[in-house]
Amino acid sequence: MKSIRIIFMLWVSLFTPLSNSAQTVSQSDEDALFIRKIYDVALTQSSCYTWLQKLCLNIGHRHSGSAAYQEAVEYSQKTMQDMGLSVRLQACKVPHWVRGEREIVEIVDLKRRLNALALGGSSATPFNGITAQVIEVKSLDEVDKLGESLRGKIVFFNRPMDKTKIHVGAAYGGAGDQRNVGPSRAAKYGAIGVLVRSLTTELDDVPHTGATRFEREADRIPALGIATNDAELLSKTLKDNPLTTIRIKTHCQNLPEVEAFNVIGEIKGSEFPDEIIMVCGHLDSWDVGQGAHDDGAGCAHVLEVLNLCKQLNYKPKRTIRVVLFANEEFGLGGGRKYAEEAKNRGEKHIAAIESDNGGFTPRGFTFEAEATVFIEKYKKVVKWAGLLEPYGLTLAQGGSGADISPLKSQGFLLAGLRPDAQRYFDHHHTHRDLFEFVHRRELELGAAAMTSLVFLLDKYGN
Amino acid sequence: MKSIRIIFMLWVSLFTPLSNSAQTVSQSDEDALFIRKIYDVALTQSSCYTWLQKLCLNIGHRHSGSAAYQEAVEYSQKTMQDMGLSVRLQACKVPHWVRGEREIVEIVDLKRRLNALALGGSSATPFNGITAQVIEVKSLDEVDKLGESLRGKIVFFNRPMDKTKIHVGAAYGGAGDQRNVGPSRAAKYGAIGVLVRSLTTELDDVPHTGATRFEREADRIPALGIATNDAELLSKTLKDNPLTTIRIKTHCQNLPEVEAFNVIGEIKGSEFPDEIIMVCGHLDSWDVGQGAHDDGAGCAHVLEVLNLCKQLNYKPKRTIRVVLFANEEFGLGGGRKYAEEAKNRGEKHIAAIESDNGGFTPRGFTFEAEATVFIEKYKKVVKWAGLLEPYGLTLAQGGSGADISPLKSQGFLLAGLRPDAQRYFDHHHTHRDLFEFVHRRELELGAAAMTSLVFLLDKYGN
Repeated sequence: MKSIRIIFMLWVSLFTPLSNSAQTVSQSDEDALFIRKIYDVALTQSSCYTWLQKLCLNIGHRHSGSAAYQEAVEYSQKTMQDMGLSVRLQACKVPHWVRGEREIVEIVDLKRRLNALALGGSSATPFNGITAQVIEVKSLDEVDKLGESLRGKIVFFNRPMDKTKIHVGAAYGGAGDQRNVGPSRAAKYGAIGVLVRSLTTELDDVPHTGATRFEREADRIPALGIATNDAELLSKTLKDNPLTTIRIKTHCQNLPEVEAFNVIGEIKGSEFPDEIIMVCGHLDSWDVGQGAHDDGAGCAHVLEVLNLCKQLNYKPKRTIRVVLFANEEFGLGGGRKYAEEAKNRGEKHIAAIESDNGGFTPRGFTFEAEATVFIEKYKKVVKWAGLLEPYGLTLAQGGSGADISPLKSQGFLLAGLRPDAQRYFDHHHTHRDLFEFVHRRELELGAAAMTSLVFLLDKYGN
Repeated sequence: MKSIRIIFMLWVSLFTPLSNSAQTVSQSDEDALFIRKIYDVALTQSSCYTWLQKLCLNIGHRHSGSAAYQEAVEYSQKTMQDMGLSVRLQACKVPHWVRGEREIVEIVDLKRRLNALALGGSSATPFNGITAQVIEVKSLDEVDKLGESLRGKIVFFNRPMDKTKIHVGAAYGGAGDQRNVGPSRAAKYGAIGVLVRSLTTELDDVPHTGATRFEREADRIPALGIATNDAELLSKTLKDNPLTTIRIKTHCQNLPEVEAFNVIGEIKGSEFPDEIIMVCGHLDSWDVGQGAHDDGAGCAHVLEVLNLCKQLNYKPKRTIRVVLFANEEFGLGGGRKYAEEAKNRGEKHIAAIESDNGGFTPRGFTFEAEATVFIEKYKKVVKWAGLLEPYGLTLAQGGSGADISPLKSQGFLLAGLRPDAQRYFDHHHTHRDLFEFVHRRELELGAAAMTSLVFLLDKYGN
């Protein structure tokens, strides 16, 4: 019996990352114990779930340029001050797009209304809407091929997300061009409106919004997302009658840019105050739902990182900074401003870690950096894999987060928290992105995962 | 740029399991491609979500001994026959406990009703209930210490599940003795009723049922689970007034045993028909909710394993058998019968894999076997870790499933699917175990994971 146990231990040791052996046993044990402590406190005494509840239920969605966004800034600022952080607001410019009332998409012959949401950046229709023939396409290439034949038509982008991708984020990436630049491309050829199949793998009645970019102001046309069930219906209707017409009505408005703020709080490092470990999420959301998973959860995660430091009476050697960014959703105004100022000040970020993939059970982190420095920086973090593995976390190369992407050229290590992704696009940019769909333990585990990585970066540097 | 990529590949190779090198590259590539195909089909053409929907919405919960259980047997049998499997029913004896109407637990002084569900195996109170002083305890040991002072009292087990366990199943294991044997132990000292804090880490108003076992028939007393919020309230009330009395009313009935059936379907192996790879779940559920996660999801998983074989036109070398067990929840009648017959027939199971931990995103498999054969058998499967890792699956030593546990002594390799566990106990044994809480993709990924493991076992044996 004993010999079997020994043989089994040999087997187990085969699955302990090799590079772990570079650390002394005692250091590694000490680290393992501290990480265990982080999880113990996160799962019993954290505040992130309550913060998120207040953000979602008292303030709700907080679109760039809205009064609610400013409320969220004040709420976050106060939350950070109450934690004893040194806090500042960083001003930036953000677009101000307003949805307006009573959006309508209707298949005229069927008198059938579709579940629709105008895309951020869409222009309005005339007051009574527009009616035109609709042409279904699957790609930007197809738009280019149809070219001038699209003049006066409504273009309907209907390429589904690829369900076979294991990480749904990859499926989103593969279909996102339709929403991001489809309307602009169609307008180039004289299309007068665009419908986009909502970005989810599921068939349901929930329309998704999101940003669309127009290369030239002159190309700005009405563009709306429609629910996937409605996209299927419209496609079928077009098969029966290729001359099907659609009526679109939206009264959205593109107003002048306004000032908004990133909210920045930090604990100064005791030994290396100039080495910054930054954790972040974005405080803005779309103008529907409550922005609970996108990205209230990320904000709650990173506020909790600093709260856990306090709960654990942990005094960091390096500066730990939390940033809640303005306007991730609609042009990265906050992220660009932050990167610009970091460069001007010559700030050194040991790492910047974003949580912007929802509040589901964390599965690990992905890391990126400029190619010339990536290996060196990644080598240093990947040797901690064995310390994070007991918590179901894996480390891999991959994307980090939109808000920190403008920092990449400054040579810093960027990381993204990678939660389980299967349910994310049931909520993303919809009326269903609600607090009730965030699970307390899953959220707390995300905060604990981020705190553990921050602890290791603080202790060993990068 | 190229050299960086090469260095990175070296790094990546550090995280490929060592033992994988034992297989030739071409075999491994072929296997990887086939597993990819399993996932492609599972995520686009599987039927498991629809099956589960029918089971949950058309039949609903299906407690041992109920007519609904028999309906579920007939539905499953037909589903297997429609897939072209050879199907048989295996008779076994199961207990027949019936809840009855209008369960009541009330704090008398406060006139406050608590959210309660009688535990399976509980006896009824007299028609108008019982009223008695309530004594809070945290453990069986405490019951033993209090001993005869419990005579005539109602014992209230109130030790919470340990929130700091990362896998909630471990927290369940740590608190389960209160429900499993607490009532029996309290009865031994003359207690006339028992309340048990519901087994969940969350604070909510949802009472959980589950089985309780009485060592002696004479000890059978009324025993009910109460919601965690109500457990907190009762505990607080007792602090204010240690003489607090509780009124309990339940009209549940312990009826004579009845006959029920395991549903067994299989595809005979083309080369080694006597080597059986068995996949299973349990068809019975508690008598509230719909048994969606527990264990409709497991049944859907394993039916889908055989459906995917068919979709992929895969002809197994070994016999692949699906078993939907009777009465996991209340004595393992089905599992014991199956093991007994397997032994009598001298059946050789290459492996038995159970899915009975919900339909959430799969995180891997755990394996067990008799100590004398475990290492040898585990060695053979663990070398497939690299093939399953791209799907977020890890392999580890650990428990398998209750229904297959009686097979362990026959020297077979037993495995359990291990889905993400964070939300499981929000639903387990409650009114909230509903189809609407099962996610299509998460369910399909579970079926694909099981099919991939079955494919490797079929190809390489064990």
